[in-house]
Amino acid sequence: MAKKSFPLSRVYRLLEPGPVVLLTTAHKGRANVMTMSWHTMIEFEPPLVGCVVSDRNHSFGMLKATRECVINIPTVDIAAQVVGCGNTSGRRVDKFERFGLTPAPAASVAAPLIDECYASLECKVVDAKLVNKYCFFILEVLKAWIDASSKDPRTLHHRGRGAFMVAGRTIKLPSKKL
Amino acid sequence: MAKKSFPLSRVYRLLEPGPVVLLTTAHKGRANVMTMSWHTMIEFEPPLVGCVVSDRNHSFGMLKATRECVINIPTVDIAAQVVGCGNTSGRRVDKFERFGLTPAPAASVAAPLIDECYASLECKVVDAKLVNKYCFFILEVLKAWIDASSKDPRTLHHRGRGAFMVAGRTIKLPSKKL
Repeated sequence: MAKKSFPLSRVYRLLEPGPVVLLTTAHKGRANVMTMSWHTMIEFEPPLVGCVVSDRNHSFGMLKATRECVINIPTVDIAAQVVGCGNTSGRRVDKFERFGLTPAPAASVAAPLIDECYASLECKVVDAKLVNKYCFFILEVLKAWIDASSKDPRTLHHRGRGAFMVAGRTIKLPSKKL
Repeated sequence: MAKKSFPLSRVYRLLEPGPVVLLTTAHKGRANVMTMSWHTMIEFEPPLVGCVVSDRNHSFGMLKATRECVINIPTVDIAAQVVGCGNTSGRRVDKFERFGLTPAPAASVAAPLIDECYASLECKVVDAKLVNKYCFFILEVLKAWIDASSKDPRTLHHRGRGAFMVAGRTIKLPSKKL
């Protein structure tokens, strides 16, 4: 998917709707992917994102050790792969190979972008104060990429136990604010 | 709207899809409402929710002082009111009156439920360590309510500058996990 650079000041518009994302990490020459829904914007610019990566996930140790990751945003086209990544562990499986996902080099971190995702956010950990208690990481987005042709991405929104709401139509209301 | 009690173990299913919510607070006999999109689940049970309430919002001081609030989840039926609450300040306006929202008493906190919302979560602040730096509060959900008839709520998901994605269809995929 041909991606172009996306302004950091607009990153909140990608994450604020609450899509399921694929978090990639890389450590000692191996990359991993995990499916994640527990994330929130924390600041507009530089964009800060808070997220929970459970210490039961293989990605937890990789994120803690490298302090780098990429948040990739998939659409319904790869829903089966998204669920597959959530149901397997990177301890035993190379998920890129298993699910036919294509890693692409990032500009500022070692973790890869996922080519099949319409947007990718390169991140570093900037605050780990709540990691021990809640597995909650605060990330700064260093660089953002988007599929130039995407307008109304059919993102996935997890409703529990394998049920996903697929993004519907967009309405516009007069707003004075961001 | 007739609401019934909703199991705390399932609260994540309401917030994980990333809907815009209306946060209510009450202090010194006055209640307020703010529109909020920056929230995430942090733990399943007891359900913990992290959220950003900016210190530019009137609700910030009320939440900090009382350590209580209700997270109400609106649907597209009241989209105009949701945006209205986001565009006005509780310093000057009684938003319940202005936007025709109906406060209803909560069971365990002083902040009111909003009758027009399909779900309401009564919360208390359990961790304020990141409030000074990021205006980030960690809440525990004490009691949850849901409209018994709601199945596929048409929640709102903010895409920035008054654009809202309206929840679309739900698909089901085989998942081994929560």
